[in-house]
Amino acid sequence: MSKPMELEDVTAPVCCAPLSTSDLGEAEAVELAGVFKALADPIRLRLLNMIASAEDGEACVCDLTVPFDLTAPTISHHLKVLRQAGLIDGERRGTWVYYRVIPERLTRLSGLFALPALATA
Amino acid sequence: MSKPMELEDVTAPVCCAPLSTSDLGEAEAVELAGVFKALADPIRLRLLNMIASAEDGEACVCDLTVPFDLTAPTISHHLKVLRQAGLIDGERRGTWVYYRVIPERLTRLSGLFALPALATA
Repeated sequence: MSKPMELEDVTAPVCCAPLSTSDLGEAEAVELAGVFKALADPIRLRLLNMIASAEDGEACVCDLTVPFDLTAPTISHHLKVLRQAGLIDGERRGTWVYYRVIPERLTRLSGLFALPALATA
Repeated sequence: MSKPMELEDVTAPVCCAPLSTSDLGEAEAVELAGVFKALADPIRLRLLNMIASAEDGEACVCDLTVPFDLTAPTISHHLKVLRQAGLIDGERRGTWVYYRVIPERLTRLSGLFALPALATA
């Protein structure tokens, strides 16, 4: 007998209620620090920006190298860091890899910095 | 003749519309990367959490050292990094320094990760 299909609530954050209203545990702090380390680089921020703002919600790696005076392997390294941090995902189709953001992760970060005064205003 | 008082709109972000809807410039990316570097440390994240969630909106440095097995100078260093990143501010009153978050900066970070689908839902 097959198990009933479970609907996973992917919008439910693994952690993080707002920093202003909850206690951040040690393990959560370590995990989040890793995400911010991935974001602590101007090239990676601009890549994330390009992917997040891409038409159709996805960006071809072939377009991501254009604005930077960097080699393809360097761009690939930065994309790998963003991917390992859970911020983006990539799918190979033919010659190229297409990247899109993982919305739950961005929403989680957005919520982390939300302030109660704004939430209840 | 004195200049008319100018009301500064401190809620206006220096940069950052959402990553998903705007183009992040090089200078903005460099500045933001610095903020995320400050956040890329578990101790600093927990300190920011303690300050952001403190009653009355401020936390005495005398309370911030308690949960950590770290020396006061180490905690002070981490607080200095958060302060230099513009995330917190401190005020000396008597023996102790009292810290509070800078709400505009947290709101700006929250907005940076906002997604249009959520904003228009």
